[in-house]
Amino acid sequence: MQSVKIVEVGPRDGLQNEKRPLSAEIKLELIRRLAGTGLSAIEAGAFVSPKWVPQMAGSAEVLAALDTTGAIAYPVLVPNDMGLDAALAAGAREIAVFGAASESFSQKNINASIAESLQRFASVARRALDAGVKVRGYVSCVVGCPYEGRIAPQKVADVARALADLGCYEISLGDTIGVGTPASVREMLDAVLDVLPAGQLAGHFHDTYGMAVANIRAALDVGLRVFDASVAGLGGCPYARGASGNVATEDVAYLLAGEGYHTGIDLTKLVDVAWFIADALGKPPASKLTHALGRQG
Amino acid sequence: MQSVKIVEVGPRDGLQNEKRPLSAEIKLELIRRLAGTGLSAIEAGAFVSPKWVPQMAGSAEVLAALDTTGAIAYPVLVPNDMGLDAALAAGAREIAVFGAASESFSQKNINASIAESLQRFASVARRALDAGVKVRGYVSCVVGCPYEGRIAPQKVADVARALADLGCYEISLGDTIGVGTPASVREMLDAVLDVLPAGQLAGHFHDTYGMAVANIRAALDVGLRVFDASVAGLGGCPYARGASGNVATEDVAYLLAGEGYHTGIDLTKLVDVAWFIADALGKPPASKLTHALGRQG
Repeated sequence: MQSVKIVEVGPRDGLQNEKRPLSAEIKLELIRRLAGTGLSAIEAGAFVSPKWVPQMAGSAEVLAALDTTGAIAYPVLVPNDMGLDAALAAGAREIAVFGAASESFSQKNINASIAESLQRFASVARRALDAGVKVRGYVSCVVGCPYEGRIAPQKVADVARALADLGCYEISLGDTIGVGTPASVREMLDAVLDVLPAGQLAGHFHDTYGMAVANIRAALDVGLRVFDASVAGLGGCPYARGASGNVATEDVAYLLAGEGYHTGIDLTKLVDVAWFIADALGKPPASKLTHALGRQG
Repeated sequence: MQSVKIVEVGPRDGLQNEKRPLSAEIKLELIRRLAGTGLSAIEAGAFVSPKWVPQMAGSAEVLAALDTTGAIAYPVLVPNDMGLDAALAAGAREIAVFGAASESFSQKNINASIAESLQRFASVARRALDAGVKVRGYVSCVVGCPYEGRIAPQKVADVARALADLGCYEISLGDTIGVGTPASVREMLDAVLDVLPAGQLAGHFHDTYGMAVANIRAALDVGLRVFDASVAGLGGCPYARGASGNVATEDVAYLLAGEGYHTGIDLTKLVDVAWFIADALGKPPASKLTHALGRQG
């Protein structure tokens, strides 16, 4: 039985896009419950300015309370050297940098061109690696961009390769606006697989248009074995226009079990974590599966 | 460019499972708007007892008001000879019979064994064909059954073949409880494709567990080119346990466009029909895509 790893991004990528900010206590409780489901990688926070992303305030407190030296990885997002200093001080053993395959998105999202962002990440990555800290790279807008429309697969391959050259052990390819279908996802992956092996890639799909599960199935077909997902579909709201819409971890775990892959995740426990965090946010889980299964505990 | 046909089942399979019964006027308005999107087949009603299925009352009135001799097919569900009489009187040019691959489901759903149901359908099909009326066959529970669990693929193949032998020009294979993933769907289809050609099969997937779009992609891979879908995901409620959950026609149309298939459907118009019927039912559309795109008109 082949294994597939799910990187749970709910506590960072998910909560970052939720309107209601949560306390460090609730975030910690969420992460601990997620750890209890069998997940082996849980993105725990972001060391960004609370002025810009108030939802990520308290990330240092959260990270410091976790055992970052154990079997479960707790990567944190780090945008620059200042963020790295804070992450290292809080005990980070893995960080992630967030690049884009779209120039316009890079400018609007992090106020830097792609080239400038890569320069910034080079320093962050070098210092992290020197400290024995693993570095993961995100590429956003790998299929489409809200400002530019379609993104050329070669552009994605170039940015992914550049992040790998900076020392990223894994590159997570994000369909940030969820417009991809298996055909465009395959086309993009084929280009990236020309420059990097499948074992160095992760798929990060948003379910904005309901295509995420099919896109994951397509990525499995070309050898990807790591996927990002967000418990309860955190970060997306099924009833709001233009919602971000991370694919729900429950949906991915169900798909993978059905397809015969080992994930180590207990779906029953995971569904209950989805209800826990949905209750904390005062909104329904974004996963149909979670509603169909109902509360398990 | 290859073509794929979507059979819109919202006005029958969808509305039948909605709590709020709609007037014949609203149903007719729905069907007329659906016809305006480019759909070529729209299931228009069911000739069943209004005592058992009050939502389908008025099907004769609806069908009689439609042009059943034109380019758009308006199949109606017919459970028995009495239903056929009423359907023919209302001008039906295509009917559908509804069988199951699960004995328990057949007993609970239509109070007959599979063998008894096929006998009943034999008479209905023969009389319909004699009257020059096309007959479509449904097989429910093709992957799993709420009472029996997993259904053997060979059982599905047997029932599908039996319906074809009765003269059904097309057999729609329904994952009624939506538990399938691409692997189990492929296993089932492989068994059915041993006894019937892909051109005689349709896929009917429910999105109860969020797998429908991926399952359609899997069915495309083995040659299926007809899929049932329900505008706005009618018949399923994302926020109710055990919801039926027909896949939304919008999601299927988006997938097929992305995969390079011609459907003849105008997605913008279709999304507006989804909002129209959701408003009429007083509930949100069950499609994330429809929320992401918002109201178009």
